[in-house]
Parts: sequence; structure tokens; C-alpha cells
Amino acid sequence: MLTLYSYWRSSAAYRVRIALNLKGLAYRQVPVHLVQDGGQQRAADYRALNPQQLVPLLVDEVNGGARIAQSLAILEYLEEVFPVPAILPGDPLERAQVRALALHIACEIHPLNNLRVLQYLSGELGVDDAAKDAWYRHWVATGLAAVEQGLDVFAGRFSLGDRPGYLEACLVPQVYNARRFACDLAPFPRIRQLAERCEALESFRSAAPEVQPDAQ
Amino acid sequence: MLTLYSYWRSSAAYRVRIALNLKGLAYRQVPVHLVQDGGQQRAADYRALNPQQLVPLLVDEVNGGARIAQSLAILEYLEEVFPVPAILPGDPLERAQVRALALHIACEIHPLNNLRVLQYLSGELGVDDAAKDAWYRHWVATGLAAVEQGLDVFAGRFSLGDRPGYLEACLVPQVYNARRFACDLAPFPRIRQLAERCEALESFRSAAPEVQPDAQ
Repeated sequence: MLTLYSYWRSSAAYRVRIALNLKGLAYRQVPVHLVQDGGQQRAADYRALNPQQLVPLLVDEVNGGARIAQSLAILEYLEEVFPVPAILPGDPLERAQVRALALHIACEIHPLNNLRVLQYLSGELGVDDAAKDAWYRHWVATGLAAVEQGLDVFAGRFSLGDRPGYLEACLVPQVYNARRFACDLAPFPRIRQLAERCEALESFRSAAPEVQPDAQ
Repeated sequence: MLTLYSYWRSSAAYRVRIALNLKGLAYRQVPVHLVQDGGQQRAADYRALNPQQLVPLLVDEVNGGARIAQSLAILEYLEEVFPVPAILPGDPLERAQVRALALHIACEIHPLNNLRVLQYLSGELGVDDAAKDAWYRHWVATGLAAVEQGLDVFAGRFSLGDRPGYLEACLVPQVYNARRFACDLAPFPRIRQLAERCEALESFRSAAPEVQPDAQ
């Protein structure tokens, strides 16, 4: 039995929901509200589970109640423990290309735009909403430009040829965030087309933020 | 033959230098100066090699000139192509614990404190030096507190028991950055001790920023 501690709008949690669906793994979802109660991820009971005080967290009851933080660590774990169907290609170079693009999203775009960083900009630094939005869009535009170029190796197909995997599990949530903050996606046709093809699939539809049990 | 495009002070490049040394792999280093010439990573010839416009980049001439961006994608590639000696544990749960801590450094601390982000704070947002230093130290302190707790599973030993690996390749460069910006490491005794034990080893000493050919 797998349990995912999640927040509907967390794009890191969204990545894991997609990966679980792609692998056809059933899971129980426990919501952790990142805003209510001063952030439920900081509450003592959740901190005891995940000292990183972030979502997602995967608990694998079959594997001794293993608790795994960080969305990409969870994706790698799922790939190792439940290898079929694979979400990474088999060839080491192709795996590296997928990981390099996924890590560009996870390390160069998302960390700069997550909730606690935006809160710090508004709070401690007194940045106004217009400048905060410009910050958000700057990192999205810079990062997606790199991802757009990187997608050329897939030549209009999914990262696994005929089906999506690890890369798309990271890309689609980032596109969701970009749309939410009205970022201009016009310069990124490969990204838009790939995201739209994924979003038509049930594994992505049922992972979407707005259909999660804690969506508001 | 392996070629690493690197900058002496880039902590992401520093991670890869450590991993290459831990695996005993010879490599050629090509410096990419992140400040000179408006940032050599943005020059057309480098952009053609790495559209992400970041260091490090690993080129594996043996594997068809494969070019791999993103330090953690490079670490995973090295582990897959040159498996001995391993830098990750063998057990999937232990691998996940190592990756979750490494990703906490790579996704929650370092992206907020790298050069281009500090440049944006000073430039576009007009943040003064004191507030910028406070920003830097805030993310280091928050992130290292989580890493400190996560290290308890290793009980004062290296992540591979008697020797360091993937985790330490990420931790030591982050500690280097923290010291450079005079962050208080007193609350993190496990991190300090682990970093110091690593820094006594030749594989870490020869990867240190100050002994690189492009160090200034």
C-alpha cells in the first residue's frame, strides 16, 4: 500500500500523482494544506514524518513504512521498485537526457517560484505584486526556453516514443503553473503540444490539481 | 575520454568533480567563466553545446560525444555507465534517502542562491547587499536544518558506510558555499563533521574550487 502526502496545487506532488498513474499503482492520498493553519507541512505530526516540511512525501507500507521525500527521489524509487511499465528509457544516455530536462524544471524553474519563495519576496523583501509576477515569469520564460530546445531530440514524440514518462510527469505540472500565472507559452510550441497530448490521457487527467480531493 | 565544462566556483560543477574523483575517472576540464564576457555560458559556441546555458556539462566522447547537462543527471549517468565503485547504495530505499537529501540541497537551497538569482535580486529588484545576504543565509539555514535531521539515518558514518558517495558530493559543495557567505553552521554538527571528514580525502581535496585550473 502506498500513501501520498500531497497538496492539490503543489506541482511537485502533481509530478508524483502522474508517475503513480503511469505505473498503474493504486495509492491513498492524504492532503497537507500548505496555507491553512500557517502551513500544515510545519505541524509537529507532519514534521515527524517528513523533516523537510514539504510535500510530496511517499510512504510505502509494504517496504517497512519507508518514507521518501522529494518528488524526483520518489520517481526514481518507483522506477526501481515497480519497474514495469518504465517511466525512463533504457539507454543511459537517453535516461540522462530525460533527467537533465526534468532537473532543469525541478532545479532552475520551480524552486524560484514556489509558495514559500513568493511569500519571502512579498514579506521580508517587500516586493510588490507586479515585480513578483515579473520574477515568476522571468524564471518560467528562461527555463522553458532551455526545455523547448532540449525537446528537439524527441522529434515531436513522447519521451518514451509512443508514451509519456518521467519527463512529462515534470513538464505538465510546470505548464500548469505557467498558465496559472499567465506566462506566455507562445514561444514554446513543442512544450505546448507535448503538454496537450499528455493532458488528453487519463493518467494525466486524473492527476490534475482541480480533480484532487482537497481541491478548492 | 570525459570532458567537463566547469567553473571553479560553481557548486554544481564541484559536485561532478567529486563524483568523477570518487569513481577514479580521468577527465579533461574546460573552464566556462560565469562572469567574464557577460557570462561565457551565454556565448553562442557554448550555447550550441548546452542550450541550458549553465555549468556543468559532461561530454563523453566514447559514447558518441554524448552531452549531459545538470549535475545530478551527470551523477546518475556516471553511476549507470561506470558502476564500480558505486556512489549510491544498492538498496532502493537507501538510494531514495540519499537522493532525497541530495535533491533537498539541489532543489531547495542552491537554486535560490546561485549567481543569476543574486544578480536578479540586486539588479531588477534593487535589493541591497544586507537583504541579499539575509536571503542567502535564510535558505541555507532552512535547508541545512532539514539535511541535518535527514543525516541521522547514517549514524555518524558516510552515506555508503565506510566511504562517501552521491550525498557527500552534493553536501560538501553546499557547505563550501555556506562558509563563503559566512552562514552559521554551529546548529549543524552532523553536517560539519561529515563535510570535514570528506574534505580530508584526496578525492574531495582535488575537486575543491581553489585548486582548479581556472581558480582566481
